[in-house]
Amino acid sequence: MNSQSLTSLSALTLGQMIRDLEVSPVEVINACLERISTLDKRINAFMRVFNEDAISDAKKAQDEIMAGHWRGPLHGVPFAVKDLFDTAGAPATAGSKIWKDYVPVADANVVEKLREAGAILIGKLNMHEFAFGITSRNPHYGATLNPWDITKMCGGSSSGSAAALAAGFVPLALGTDTGGSIRIPSSLCGTVGLKPTYGLVSRRGVLPLAWSLDHVGPMARQVEDIALGLQIIAGYDYKDHSSVNCKPEDYVTQLKGNINGLVIGLPTTFFYENLRKDVKEAVLKAVKGMETLGASVREIEIPGIIESDLAAFTVLFSEAATCLETHARHRPQDVGEEVMSNIRLGMTIPATRYIQALRIRTKLIDVLADVFSQVDLLVVPGTSVDAPPIESSEVSIGTDQEISVRSALTRFTRYFNLAGNPVLCIPCGFSNQRLPVGMQIIGRPFDEATLLKTGHLFQKAFPLDPSMPSVLH
Amino acid sequence: MNSQSLTSLSALTLGQMIRDLEVSPVEVINACLERISTLDKRINAFMRVFNEDAISDAKKAQDEIMAGHWRGPLHGVPFAVKDLFDTAGAPATAGSKIWKDYVPVADANVVEKLREAGAILIGKLNMHEFAFGITSRNPHYGATLNPWDITKMCGGSSSGSAAALAAGFVPLALGTDTGGSIRIPSSLCGTVGLKPTYGLVSRRGVLPLAWSLDHVGPMARQVEDIALGLQIIAGYDYKDHSSVNCKPEDYVTQLKGNINGLVIGLPTTFFYENLRKDVKEAVLKAVKGMETLGASVREIEIPGIIESDLAAFTVLFSEAATCLETHARHRPQDVGEEVMSNIRLGMTIPATRYIQALRIRTKLIDVLADVFSQVDLLVVPGTSVDAPPIESSEVSIGTDQEISVRSALTRFTRYFNLAGNPVLCIPCGFSNQRLPVGMQIIGRPFDEATLLKTGHLFQKAFPLDPSMPSVLH
Repeated sequence: MNSQSLTSLSALTLGQMIRDLEVSPVEVINACLERISTLDKRINAFMRVFNEDAISDAKKAQDEIMAGHWRGPLHGVPFAVKDLFDTAGAPATAGSKIWKDYVPVADANVVEKLREAGAILIGKLNMHEFAFGITSRNPHYGATLNPWDITKMCGGSSSGSAAALAAGFVPLALGTDTGGSIRIPSSLCGTVGLKPTYGLVSRRGVLPLAWSLDHVGPMARQVEDIALGLQIIAGYDYKDHSSVNCKPEDYVTQLKGNINGLVIGLPTTFFYENLRKDVKEAVLKAVKGMETLGASVREIEIPGIIESDLAAFTVLFSEAATCLETHARHRPQDVGEEVMSNIRLGMTIPATRYIQALRIRTKLIDVLADVFSQVDLLVVPGTSVDAPPIESSEVSIGTDQEISVRSALTRFTRYFNLAGNPVLCIPCGFSNQRLPVGMQIIGRPFDEATLLKTGHLFQKAFPLDPSMPSVLH
Repeated sequence: MNSQSLTSLSALTLGQMIRDLEVSPVEVINACLERISTLDKRINAFMRVFNEDAISDAKKAQDEIMAGHWRGPLHGVPFAVKDLFDTAGAPATAGSKIWKDYVPVADANVVEKLREAGAILIGKLNMHEFAFGITSRNPHYGATLNPWDITKMCGGSSSGSAAALAAGFVPLALGTDTGGSIRIPSSLCGTVGLKPTYGLVSRRGVLPLAWSLDHVGPMARQVEDIALGLQIIAGYDYKDHSSVNCKPEDYVTQLKGNINGLVIGLPTTFFYENLRKDVKEAVLKAVKGMETLGASVREIEIPGIIESDLAAFTVLFSEAATCLETHARHRPQDVGEEVMSNIRLGMTIPATRYIQALRIRTKLIDVLADVFSQVDLLVVPGTSVDAPPIESSEVSIGTDQEISVRSALTRFTRYFNLAGNPVLCIPCGFSNQRLPVGMQIIGRPFDEATLLKTGHLFQKAFPLDPSMPSVLH
């Protein structure tokens, strides 16, 4: 098997081949490193590549496996993480100049778990500065470009994570999602991303942006790898106050099964409004496809969405300002213009507005409990447009309708950060420009298994042509 | 038994006598109503007395009991509630002019529970306006005076509740506690009050002041009545988002037993500083008394108290401003001067400060978990002085040391609103002026049983002379 074929495989398949000694971890890691070295200068997905460490880890994995000490399905499989995850001995910049020289002494809880499972960390990924933004333009480390079209943004803030997956650099990555930061780049890059239920995955050792909205989640090209990754990283961490003590699940085994009788809800307002026609059509076509797999579809009215969307904005900006205020005050020259202006905006919000937003969140949780007593899943678009040009600040969503890039990319995602429900974002088709279109599948709290099963069946039944019309091929 | 003796009995005793037909509910209610009618013009504890309804309810209770339908230990026993509890068909003013004509259609959850248990609501009690203050001076309905000395304040905000108990108007009352509003008047009036663990008692139908700090709790003269009242009102209420789904407990039965081996912690800083010498001595003498009952005493260092105390202040003022902002904006002429100035202060707090305060709360909860791994209880004073003169705004805590009444009364209480732990405040002695001194017994979350057992044993072993040197006798 040549190295390009290796880099297109799923983590699950690679892991099986490694276990069966069909390929060695060293071969896999070398294939990834080679591809990164050749192509990443065009994409700028990686902040840092651990060439030597990764090869040495791969040799160790190889030795262990040859000695009969197989650690499990991720043993010897490469992964990479957004540069706000702590990695022992290697910098974690959070895409900022402020943290440029910060070298953590320990791994983030989830990085530690993946390494214990035998996965091999091959590098740290570019991101929006402090994860506070979604354009993938980073003033300190350069923009990450979209592998499907390098004149386009790949979305953020987990820009490098989605780009590295789309470009075939790694089969598995970690991102974080505070207002859509896993789902937006997944949507624009044609990759898969999961924002798990709030509290399911530990955030210890991950730089916070907004405590009550921050989620750590797996990103991949295949839903099966999301299941596998989640299985490893999910679980109670008493050192993380947001962590919920719930039973570990075998998400991979639960991928088997059908979705007969599953009721999919389509919101009648907001989520199918103010978006590009080709994006909407791609999502609705995918929903029709899910019907052919046994699901039924029901329109559902969700009250108070706009109020909740505003509340999500208020909570995000208030909490992020609390996190970042010190930098804005003491090292303003080291903070990028966009983030600085966002922090300043957050600092003007009165406590009374923030508390009202928290009250709206409580109502929202009731509303969604009611919604999910009527349907099993919701399906909505990931973003309202496909990948915008890298330098754009406004984007067209139809004749005469220009909206800000921020609004176009976050309007369908941040609502679910406030709610806390799990959301799987998977590619579901292409836009008129043949750029990926993503859809969000939302489920009941802690019902990741249903999301993953549905996404997996969809991906198997309706595989999308992965060939990129880009300079990468 | 004459009517004055009846009004000095505990709810538990009255309930037993009613069950055993030694006294009828009508006799009990009449005794209370008579005492209120004679003496409350001096105290101003009641906002409203339900003379006819109470007598009619008493007759109904009498008929039920005679017919063999005994509802339980509170059947036929009178109680009264602070005027911010919803009472079907009767006003709930919250001590404000704004809510003067508000007549709820349903009872608050806890009022409903007490009524279902057969207890008889005989009136609504005066309080600090909106429960936002602790002086017991109400600009719209007059001050509530301290039955021990009517030139003194009785503390607040549940002023009427403590005064009505101290004056022998009722054996059981309900109050609310956001920064000390149950414990402060209990401390100044020589009565008992419990701030239960956050989430143990439903707040449905109770006007909020600060959602994350508000607690509903029972007040009485005897700890056994607190146990009895708590047993009835505690329990999960799915309509209250702060409500915790925990197992109902029989607190009265758990009063039996001893406190051998129980470890009482005395904080080495803050809680025994900046208070009047006679108050401190009374509390420390009571702690010595608890040692003779089998407990051991250990000094314990609690880090970060001042930081947490400030955080409690920030959370209280921010949340209260959120609750009351509308009134301040739209009906400023109908809001008292003190509350208005407090709301305005709260409105100036930025969200970033509030969120930092919530972060400090998280740390505080960890700190107290650690403290309660070393001790079973903490004992600290209720207030730093005995009841101040009714019109005072400053009070002396020693030679040359004047502090604000707000600080003198709330400095030892609000820390535990932020923490959420249960706190029982019981009278433990007298000051030099022969005014009551209260102590707070703090326990592990949901360990009300240990607090109550300890308080009950103390009260039985060291009964305080209840005779008041006041105009009431």
